[in-house]
Amino acid sequence: MAKHKNLLENKNTKVIVSSEEVISIGFDKWKTFKFLEEIGLNSPKTYIDLDKAIAAIEAGVLKFPLVLKPRWGSGSIGIEIPETLDELLLSYKLQKLKLKRSILKNASEKDINNAILIQEKIEGVEFGLDVVNDFEGNYFGTFAREKLAMRSGETDKAESVIKPAFDEVGQKLGSHLKHIGNMDVDAFLVNDRLYILELNLRFGGGYPFSHEAGANIAKVYIDWLNEVDEKEVLKNINYKSGISFSKCDRLLNISHK
Amino acid sequence: MAKHKNLLENKNTKVIVSSEEVISIGFDKWKTFKFLEEIGLNSPKTYIDLDKAIAAIEAGVLKFPLVLKPRWGSGSIGIEIPETLDELLLSYKLQKLKLKRSILKNASEKDINNAILIQEKIEGVEFGLDVVNDFEGNYFGTFAREKLAMRSGETDKAESVIKPAFDEVGQKLGSHLKHIGNMDVDAFLVNDRLYILELNLRFGGGYPFSHEAGANIAKVYIDWLNEVDEKEVLKNINYKSGISFSKCDRLLNISHK
Repeated sequence: MAKHKNLLENKNTKVIVSSEEVISIGFDKWKTFKFLEEIGLNSPKTYIDLDKAIAAIEAGVLKFPLVLKPRWGSGSIGIEIPETLDELLLSYKLQKLKLKRSILKNASEKDINNAILIQEKIEGVEFGLDVVNDFEGNYFGTFAREKLAMRSGETDKAESVIKPAFDEVGQKLGSHLKHIGNMDVDAFLVNDRLYILELNLRFGGGYPFSHEAGANIAKVYIDWLNEVDEKEVLKNINYKSGISFSKCDRLLNISHK
Repeated sequence: MAKHKNLLENKNTKVIVSSEEVISIGFDKWKTFKFLEEIGLNSPKTYIDLDKAIAAIEAGVLKFPLVLKPRWGSGSIGIEIPETLDELLLSYKLQKLKLKRSILKNASEKDINNAILIQEKIEGVEFGLDVVNDFEGNYFGTFAREKLAMRSGETDKAESVIKPAFDEVGQKLGSHLKHIGNMDVDAFLVNDRLYILELNLRFGGGYPFSHEAGANIAKVYIDWLNEVDEKEVLKNINYKSGISFSKCDRLLNISHK
């Protein structure tokens, strides 16, 4: 989408997506780590070189359990959580074999020896943030929720939170990244320090929680498109803390007959 | 629950659960395979001994991709799908290490060399079956649904199906197993042959689909408890084929304030 933005916009549409460079920072988890380090935000200790990771373990700098994940894409190949050196070595080898297979299939040319991230496993309270910039990449606002329950990687239950520390982090992210529109951010709070894990340059599965807690970003987008006055735009934001929502399944009849 | 059934029933309650032996057939996936083989139902080729599995691969009897899964419990440790011999060996080693760790933690005494199943990966149309016996273990009925969409192991979309072949399989299962109440069964249909994968001796995540398609087993249970006439009980069953249901998320406000 980012690649064909100009072409699409010629057709009298507005494509609300960040530049290719910004998208690649979210897509490449090693770039994410480097970017966070550069702007001075906390993130889990991360290695891309197995030997360096092992050296760090031996030096006592990096501690088990660790998280192994593919550098690119959305962890469909499956994250591993080794708890010992033996498990790390086996997991790494296995993930490399699997990646090689999928890379060959996709005719990609990624460097296989730098395709797996070895990351410190952060234990803390999990948060999701919607960091919103306007269509020119100027920071607009941050809407945070504490994840109270997860279910296979998705937020099942969450509570809205308002804290100056979250606004500061969101502002730092938004103003340095200059992304366009909504960005879904995964974070962990450990002893009052917020660690950033992932940047998803899109509406994430957690957005409905922000929306229900009073941040109607969909309406904000429409107002921006209609070049509505900023004071009017802000009327769509009535974010309250302490609002808890839970996902709830029901069955919908979709029979053709 | 099965273990303490007598104790609980002395307290003037009715515990609707199968015997310990029947529960163990569902819990131990190797026992499941042996049981299915014994009563002449199809199931994926399954090995519990790595060497025998490798011999079968070399003889061309067992083909990649394979499925590696822990013999006991609900696959929380994660299923592996090796596509080559190297991947099989690495996956097996890794899963063994992880099991050893969790077994040590749980002070279990399971035999670590027979704790991982190596199974043929069946490619076919996936079905879920509710096989219902009465509280004496007599076969009552089978309610089948085709799984149209899955989402992290759970059925997201399904359509009710009525086929004599499914009733036959369900009747065979129920009358041999003599379980109590509802059993959730995972199955694959390949060229008109139904392969049974797993027996879950409880209401499964798919039951709401059976319920919505006309099998009100909850009401059947209540009628049985009230010793209602069998003719009346059957009025709770109006199972129709071709009824499609989809899970649908909504957010529920659960704030305390």
